[in-house]
Amino acid sequence: MGLALRLLLAFVVIGSSVASDNVDLWPMPQSVSHGGQKLYVKKDITMSMVGSTYSDDKAILKDAFQRMVDLITLNHVIDGISPSALVLTCVNIVVHTPEDELNFGVDESYNLTVPTTGDPLYAQIEAKTVFGALHAIQTFSQLCYFDFTSRLIELNSAPWIITDTPRFPYRGLLIDTARHYLPVKIIKGVIDAMTYSKLNVLHWHIVDEQSFPIEIPSYPKLWNGSYSYSERYTMSDAVDIVRYAEKRGVNVLAEIDVPGHARSWGVGYSSLWPSQSCREPLDVSKNFTFEVIDGILSDFSKVFKFKFVHLGGDEVNTTCWTTTPHIEGWLNDNHMNVSDAYRDFVLRSQKIAISHGYDVINWEETFNSFGDKLDPKTVVHNWLGEDVAPKVVAAGHRCIVSNQDKWYLDHLDASWEGFYMNEPLKGINDTKQKQLVIGGEVCMWGEEIDASDIEQTIWPRAAAAADCGLQWRSLQMTQD
Amino acid sequence: MGLALRLLLAFVVIGSSVASDNVDLWPMPQSVSHGGQKLYVKKDITMSMVGSTYSDDKAILKDAFQRMVDLITLNHVIDGISPSALVLTCVNIVVHTPEDELNFGVDESYNLTVPTTGDPLYAQIEAKTVFGALHAIQTFSQLCYFDFTSRLIELNSAPWIITDTPRFPYRGLLIDTARHYLPVKIIKGVIDAMTYSKLNVLHWHIVDEQSFPIEIPSYPKLWNGSYSYSERYTMSDAVDIVRYAEKRGVNVLAEIDVPGHARSWGVGYSSLWPSQSCREPLDVSKNFTFEVIDGILSDFSKVFKFKFVHLGGDEVNTTCWTTTPHIEGWLNDNHMNVSDAYRDFVLRSQKIAISHGYDVINWEETFNSFGDKLDPKTVVHNWLGEDVAPKVVAAGHRCIVSNQDKWYLDHLDASWEGFYMNEPLKGINDTKQKQLVIGGEVCMWGEEIDASDIEQTIWPRAAAAADCGLQWRSLQMTQD
Repeated sequence: MGLALRLLLAFVVIGSSVASDNVDLWPMPQSVSHGGQKLYVKKDITMSMVGSTYSDDKAILKDAFQRMVDLITLNHVIDGISPSALVLTCVNIVVHTPEDELNFGVDESYNLTVPTTGDPLYAQIEAKTVFGALHAIQTFSQLCYFDFTSRLIELNSAPWIITDTPRFPYRGLLIDTARHYLPVKIIKGVIDAMTYSKLNVLHWHIVDEQSFPIEIPSYPKLWNGSYSYSERYTMSDAVDIVRYAEKRGVNVLAEIDVPGHARSWGVGYSSLWPSQSCREPLDVSKNFTFEVIDGILSDFSKVFKFKFVHLGGDEVNTTCWTTTPHIEGWLNDNHMNVSDAYRDFVLRSQKIAISHGYDVINWEETFNSFGDKLDPKTVVHNWLGEDVAPKVVAAGHRCIVSNQDKWYLDHLDASWEGFYMNEPLKGINDTKQKQLVIGGEVCMWGEEIDASDIEQTIWPRAAAAADCGLQWRSLQMTQD
Repeated sequence: MGLALRLLLAFVVIGSSVASDNVDLWPMPQSVSHGGQKLYVKKDITMSMVGSTYSDDKAILKDAFQRMVDLITLNHVIDGISPSALVLTCVNIVVHTPEDELNFGVDESYNLTVPTTGDPLYAQIEAKTVFGALHAIQTFSQLCYFDFTSRLIELNSAPWIITDTPRFPYRGLLIDTARHYLPVKIIKGVIDAMTYSKLNVLHWHIVDEQSFPIEIPSYPKLWNGSYSYSERYTMSDAVDIVRYAEKRGVNVLAEIDVPGHARSWGVGYSSLWPSQSCREPLDVSKNFTFEVIDGILSDFSKVFKFKFVHLGGDEVNTTCWTTTPHIEGWLNDNHMNVSDAYRDFVLRSQKIAISHGYDVINWEETFNSFGDKLDPKTVVHNWLGEDVAPKVVAAGHRCIVSNQDKWYLDHLDASWEGFYMNEPLKGINDTKQKQLVIGGEVCMWGEEIDASDIEQTIWPRAAAAADCGLQWRSLQMTQD
């Protein structure tokens, strides 16, 4: 309550750049100005692309536009009688590059103008890429609402001039299909909802100690570790999910969490376990372990085309390595202690990932333990506390912020105010170091949720992070 | 646990008519026999209607078939290679009547056969009406499953011969949009899920003391009693919901609960309240009260075409009538006590509903208080306990069973075993009296749920009621 109150005060004291009326845009674009005219949106509003160098062969824009039209009716029946004037009949979308390949760092900026004059009257979107245009369509949808008196879609406070570009190139949400299996349809629903908040990375924590739901063609017995015969994803399902996400401007970051969090791997290949009685971390002493990692990452590289792969590396309890005779012997033969072995495991896995064309993301324990040995292109994924990011960027590494006290969605007592006020750049003053923070991520770990409640646990708190820490604060609004 | 154990025992002791393998059909059809052959279902399986006298002009079957095809993939990618033989390529649906008007008592029976020979190999559905055919499509979908090894839709244990007809003509689910508003999309989702369990009546408890979300064109200020400007349904929305439901074989039963449970009516028309300080039940002394009821039911009759309307009549606390001077005077002038006034209110409302072509359903308090005065065609809706239905049918009235201890979904401590074992005909021995029990209904009252958790609170317990009390127990299964 105290924090909520301070938020309100902040809105008041920020001065003349804050509109006194409500601008119902979320996340708030970088710059917004508007007037006071009411328009009506034609029920069968159309999309045109006059002036685009982009062809929309894959129907990315066409389908997004249709989804937007469905969305703004909120399933109500539009049966009012439009006035003859002030009816928006079209949205013209100008995309300035023909490419439609999504990846890290793609330009996501856009301009959106909704004029009050013109015959026909049409809104205009300009964007460098189709992915910026997708964001503009989302913003446009938030200007529209179904009015119960006119029974029409109305658009208030025109004309609008909106320019927007994301504050960070990486705006993530983690889902976890190892603790509870999530049906493909649910994952697609999560992706749809991400687009409303302009989040652009689905971090798919696919496997963990509890289950291994995904097919790995190179080592087909791995998914014997699934919870059941039907709680599985084929590689074709993964391709389908990735395509679905990319069509919505969302990258899919795949994770295998090694060497800990991998007990389920041994259900199909028990030699990956140190022993039958001690099953985690993966057996560091065997080449087979790294052959399997290589097989997984080779298969991943055909499906998960995002620049990054996540190799985990957190919470490694090495007890099984010192209590299993053949591993203890191997450590002695190689003059290593368990810390050395943990480091070598992570670095060897990194090399395999790099050989498949990936940049690597690792959880922060790897940096905390041997940061100077990590591949220089490693992105360090913070989760433990908020004081790590400044150290990571000072060491020249890139960083993703997910401090658990503020941005872990499975912490049900973490308030929306905490999500809202969390600042990824806290404690970082140097401009170049700030640029090494590529963004942040809210994490929906799967122990306590399943398909029945994942959406209502993610939202609305993830949207609070999206508006503030990841996009532009609602304060940065201007009015003409 | 004890009950679950007894259920298991019942399966075992029923004798030779029970299959030793699992037949995964739910609710269990009236008669099922099957063999042991595996078939594959063509990815783009088609529907034909050779031999039908029904034209499917409204695409009821065509759309249901497409939904079924989408459903059986569970959003997986079908990318296996079909064998050349034993592939089901088509479902031929023979409907023997051209009419497609849904209402109470429509024939819902069907036969479904899935043979193992034929070129082309096709399943056959026969039904008297399109609504029986819809049930057959649901049953067919439950025979199909995505197999992770073949990556195809498989259908085990063919040939199948299934005949089915519902045990009761009224198989209801109540939703309550007064305690929490439910968006149209959520209501449609509930309707979709009802069809999987072959429930056929959506009892829409639209308004109550808390809110009045629906538009009434005759008295347009009534929906001033909605929770907010946007938590409303237009009459066009209601038409849309009714059409959506009918296309899926689900009737929509509308309810206004009078004279209690109606405080929200007075937000728009405060003279419906006994006084500003005493707002419920509706003012029995004013003609205006009954003019409004007439207006609502007149408007309803243009939208809700089901044979029945529900007029509530439960939990009427008449204190406001005796403590409000003008009503107390009216009672004295008419030589009535509050019981007389309650009775007259209900009977006068019944006459209004009948004048608009409806048969009336009332909650059981009306029967318990003045059963001999009710219109003889009244359907009494049980909710308080399980001993009322025998009295209702002995008095010659029809009855719907919803005893709250077993079939109230808002009772989170009501177990699925309780839902499963509840028997609508308990205590009724006479065959003709049994036929007066037109069915049962599970009730999802809205105080403690909203759009975020209504589906997972309804299911799976509603399905337990659908299999046992409302359809045919899983025991009634035969094997050849």
